[in-house]
Amino acid sequence: MNIRTSDILVCGKSIKECLADIEAFHGFTAPGLVLGTFMVDWARELVGSDVEADAIVETRHCLPDAIQIFTPCSFGNGWMKVLDWGKFALSLYDKKTLEGYRVWLDLEKARQFPNIYNWYMHLVPKKELPLEVLTGTMIEAKREVLSSCAIRVTQFYESPKKGKIEICSGCGEAYPAVQGSQCLTCQGKGYYEKCQVSGVGS
Amino acid sequence: MNIRTSDILVCGKSIKECLADIEAFHGFTAPGLVLGTFMVDWARELVGSDVEADAIVETRHCLPDAIQIFTPCSFGNGWMKVLDWGKFALSLYDKKTLEGYRVWLDLEKARQFPNIYNWYMHLVPKKELPLEVLTGTMIEAKREVLSSCAIRVTQFYESPKKGKIEICSGCGEAYPAVQGSQCLTCQGKGYYEKCQVSGVGS
Ligand SMILES: [Zn+2]
Ligand SMILES: [Zn+2]
Repeated sequence: MNIRTSDILVCGKSIKECLADIEAFHGFTAPGLVLGTFMVDWARELVGSDVEADAIVETRHCLPDAIQIFTPCSFGNGWMKVLDWGKFALSLYDKKTLEGYRVWLDLEKARQFPNIYNWYMHLVPKKELPLEVLTGTMIEAKREVLSSCAIRVTQFYESPKKGKIEICSGCGEAYPAVQGSQCLTCQGKGYYEKCQVSGVGS
Repeated sequence: MNIRTSDILVCGKSIKECLADIEAFHGFTAPGLVLGTFMVDWARELVGSDVEADAIVETRHCLPDAIQIFTPCSFGNGWMKVLDWGKFALSLYDKKTLEGYRVWLDLEKARQFPNIYNWYMHLVPKKELPLEVLTGTMIEAKREVLSSCAIRVTQFYESPKKGKIEICSGCGEAYPAVQGSQCLTCQGKGYYEKCQVSGVGS
């Protein structure tokens, strides 16, 4: 990392701090998050720092964590929606006007940075493209592999309503009445079977 | 908060530090996250600190952030799955054996703490139950409103495969080939319309 690169601020921090934040939250320095840091940085700048922005992320892989690390939006507070659409793109938008900006990995531009293009398109085995080399290219490229566009959000901006709660006659737990006369787990759709473990349980 | 309460460690931290972490990540001290802190704490203890645990959360509201704040699991790294099932429950399980523990808000036990019961069942208007009073009751109750159970996870533990990537003939972006001959947005299912903004764009 040269002096110029280590001096710039991304999402209000040095690159080094961003990488440390990524590792602390995500567990490792995923390349998608390094790219995502520059995407969030650009989207934030376009939307304006004075705007309360919600987020939509178009993939469930990696990128949602860039939003969660570098903006106030999280999965649990509902300000970030995640679409499992497999596209490397995110949008930040004013939650009042629904106007904002979409930022995405622009493959045409990425051709200028073969490491990034080959990584994203799965054209090179992981062992032939060391992580440090790939993230180094991303830090070099910054916004040069990205494009942005002004948008107006037309769906997925609603807060999901919680609806009527009932107590399940099967398990005694609260569940959304809309699911039927029992909760999904008691309807046989659960994700677990109970185990017998001596000395544990309530 | 009395001395005994402020002394105990939850998720390896003091209650005060937990509340600060919640506010920093989630934006405010949501009651669901205060309860969630004790749920994660208990599940972690049951699973064992030496186990690499993945998480499943049974509601999209609030609770996923307790997992993201107090464990290495996040939405973006895929170690946390979120089911939109509207149940206040979470599981931590060994990703190798699929064995673990489910912890949930036990309504029968919560009847001993009317503030918690009334809050969860929407039986009292928010203005009649100040946030500090509610979270105070939760910190008082700790695990006394929770139950736990040993489980073996039977589905939702897989890492979703990324599959074949193609370049969309409509927008030129990469997308999962499985979606068809164009990406979902170009098929008209997108969440935005493009705006004309002078001087912006790529
Ligand atoms: Zn049930
Ligand atoms: Zn397309």
